[in-house]
Amino acid sequence: MLEHFFNPHSVAVIGASTKPKNLGNVLLKNMIDGGFLGDIFPINPRAESILGLKAYPSILEVKADVDLAIILVPAPIVIDIIRQCGEKGVKAIVIISAGFSEIGKIELEKKLVEEADRWGIRIIGPNCAGTINTYNKLFATIESRIERGNIAFVTQSGALGGAVLAWAANERIGFSKFISYGNACDVDESDLLLYLSTDNETMVITLYLEGVKDGRKFFRIAKGVSQKKPIIAIKGGLSKAGAGAVRSHTGAIAGNSQIYISVFKQAKIIRASGIEDMFDMAKALIYQRQTSGHNVVVLTNSGGPAVMVVDELEALGLSVPGPSSEIRERLSFLPPFYSVNNPIDLTAQGGPEMYEKVFRSLFSEEYYDAGIVICVPPISLDAAEVAKAVVDVLKDVDKPIVACWMAGHLVERAVQILEKNKIPNYPTPKRAAKALSVLMKKQNINR
Amino acid sequence: MLEHFFNPHSVAVIGASTKPKNLGNVLLKNMIDGGFLGDIFPINPRAESILGLKAYPSILEVKADVDLAIILVPAPIVIDIIRQCGEKGVKAIVIISAGFSEIGKIELEKKLVEEADRWGIRIIGPNCAGTINTYNKLFATIESRIERGNIAFVTQSGALGGAVLAWAANERIGFSKFISYGNACDVDESDLLLYLSTDNETMVITLYLEGVKDGRKFFRIAKGVSQKKPIIAIKGGLSKAGAGAVRSHTGAIAGNSQIYISVFKQAKIIRASGIEDMFDMAKALIYQRQTSGHNVVVLTNSGGPAVMVVDELEALGLSVPGPSSEIRERLSFLPPFYSVNNPIDLTAQGGPEMYEKVFRSLFSEEYYDAGIVICVPPISLDAAEVAKAVVDVLKDVDKPIVACWMAGHLVERAVQILEKNKIPNYPTPKRAAKALSVLMKKQNINR
Repeated sequence: MLEHFFNPHSVAVIGASTKPKNLGNVLLKNMIDGGFLGDIFPINPRAESILGLKAYPSILEVKADVDLAIILVPAPIVIDIIRQCGEKGVKAIVIISAGFSEIGKIELEKKLVEEADRWGIRIIGPNCAGTINTYNKLFATIESRIERGNIAFVTQSGALGGAVLAWAANERIGFSKFISYGNACDVDESDLLLYLSTDNETMVITLYLEGVKDGRKFFRIAKGVSQKKPIIAIKGGLSKAGAGAVRSHTGAIAGNSQIYISVFKQAKIIRASGIEDMFDMAKALIYQRQTSGHNVVVLTNSGGPAVMVVDELEALGLSVPGPSSEIRERLSFLPPFYSVNNPIDLTAQGGPEMYEKVFRSLFSEEYYDAGIVICVPPISLDAAEVAKAVVDVLKDVDKPIVACWMAGHLVERAVQILEKNKIPNYPTPKRAAKALSVLMKKQNINR
Repeated sequence: MLEHFFNPHSVAVIGASTKPKNLGNVLLKNMIDGGFLGDIFPINPRAESILGLKAYPSILEVKADVDLAIILVPAPIVIDIIRQCGEKGVKAIVIISAGFSEIGKIELEKKLVEEADRWGIRIIGPNCAGTINTYNKLFATIESRIERGNIAFVTQSGALGGAVLAWAANERIGFSKFISYGNACDVDESDLLLYLSTDNETMVITLYLEGVKDGRKFFRIAKGVSQKKPIIAIKGGLSKAGAGAVRSHTGAIAGNSQIYISVFKQAKIIRASGIEDMFDMAKALIYQRQTSGHNVVVLTNSGGPAVMVVDELEALGLSVPGPSSEIRERLSFLPPFYSVNNPIDLTAQGGPEMYEKVFRSLFSEEYYDAGIVICVPPISLDAAEVAKAVVDVLKDVDKPIVACWMAGHLVERAVQILEKNKIPNYPTPKRAAKALSVLMKKQNINR
């Protein structure tokens, strides 16, 4: 049903502009530079061509079929444009234009939907930042372009969406789909969850939510979707002051925070405490398998970070038991000055071979359910070589593992090797522990 | 008393090595490349010169006075070296070498102190990563060099110290002093706090602590120091499993976590939940003034991040009240579609002039005690221009302000402008709110 939004054969950009910095220019440029493979039709009655593409005075002048229209014209004329889209046979419309219910013009927004309904057209928006499908290079957005990946990001706040995309680029996080759904006059967060639950490129759905209009629908759909794929969400406006801010931001009702918390829990939506937390968890879920066990082993070459990891794991309700006698036996090759414990500390002496050998021993029995590997390279150690050794072992170890190679320029190449091989790395012990914990609660994920 | 550790006129590196990657080479190279202005004497009986400096077979062969000795020789001969240092008149010794109490050799470590006491020499270490004073370019460490700043960082774990320094370089955090104190056979965390409390270049003291040997001394000194300067600390080993890890890491007793939490509280030590949290707060305290008030105003051009800030502020016990009628009046120049509220949202329309004008109005009365400014630049807005406007206003506004310019490459230049002008910027709303909160609890800071 929402397929036309994400896999259109042709797109009209209505309100395309010749002026750089104008949103109608930014969006068209994103579409072209992003490399969309279908046809793009800029619509502008006062231009012959825009950014090298022939422009049309009206969508009705376009000879070919148009599946998707992106609308960036001023609010008062949007309704006429929808009618033209209807006549043209457009299937889906994204309305970037603002000036509707978010500033109190509720009736005007209702009329958009009535007009679209007449033609059987679905709407995303208005007052949104657009949509992205990295898998067919569709960047119908006024925000940054992003790398391909398996996380879908759905956001009620367009600007927050833009900020997250820019932030994610720095963090090397890739996306399958991005949807800023704005005022949600027609397609809402629940419809999008349902669509994404069947999207093959999406493994984890992330969501920034301020308020839900139809709570029952949201609960029913989210509960079903979370059985197929993990949903991680930030609920903005959980505090009293925050709820007020939501009201003046999107006009949504933030609702009783206790109700939201309980709905999230019952629908098995994973609640994130912030942006970093959301994508730390998403990265773990994308890269690593899950387990229903709760015994974690920590392998390290530095005591301090391991202590911090263990403190955090225990705070999150996980166990960090010492090795079984069988594992102790297998570790008997270690020199006597190593304390065979959990965390197991290879000290600054621990090289790639030692990491590999100990790692294999730790997982040689059905005892530990998951692991965190820490590496703080002393000057004599090549952090990338340790990364390679861990990648090697993981081919044979069937447990969730996250990494904490610290820090900065000392471990840049190592982190690339780890993440290329689907071992998520986190810049601090605390974030590594939190990310691992999400793998140990049996979230649903299809691979 | 500890002055010789940080402001020596001359330093001997005993165990300096010609082999790259050997710690005795790494440390000497750090000293030289760091640009230490005093004399450096490499000591090595088997080398004529190391890294371009004349080497001496023994410290006793050095003609000039030597204030500070850094020792990197194997554990068994350290005691002889200390005796030689005593004969030479050395005032302070940093022992990098490991192989003492951390592996159970408690008696051997005791003897080091006895020997040093005979000569009136103080020891930092053993089993540590060294010390830094950026203000005289003394980089007597095996870890990365760092930028100059006003944060002192004291750490029980050397490798964690190294990781933090590498991480801090990426985050553009500067330091006054760095001290890895290892096994603390003589100089301990309390002595260092006391020294740093009178150090003019240090405004905030950060501390990674696993266990304290003399709890009463720590409490007494920390309580006094925190009245002069904020102390921010991470206590490793607060969990049961973490306490076990501490025991096998530094051999310290992590102690009862409830006691630590209560000592921190009574001594007014600010407890950090992790590395990012510690330096987020330190940056706020270095750059901004503090207040005893608790009314915060949030100025933004994007609703979503503002909602997240407000949620976090309220969770931290701060107030986010709407503007007073006087302030509302002063804001009457705003077009009718702006909702004059808190957060006050300038929307994507808000340019630098608007930020400046509204900012001045908000702080024109004694009503708001602090502020968070958020900017998520739409494509039409130059984020750096908004930063400049905010910097301008802050010259006249005498309140603590933190910034949240989001994100990544979109705001790189803006963040540089903000931080150069001592407005700390945080990459996420949550971290900005947490950092502001530490400015609103009347920590003691001398400027």
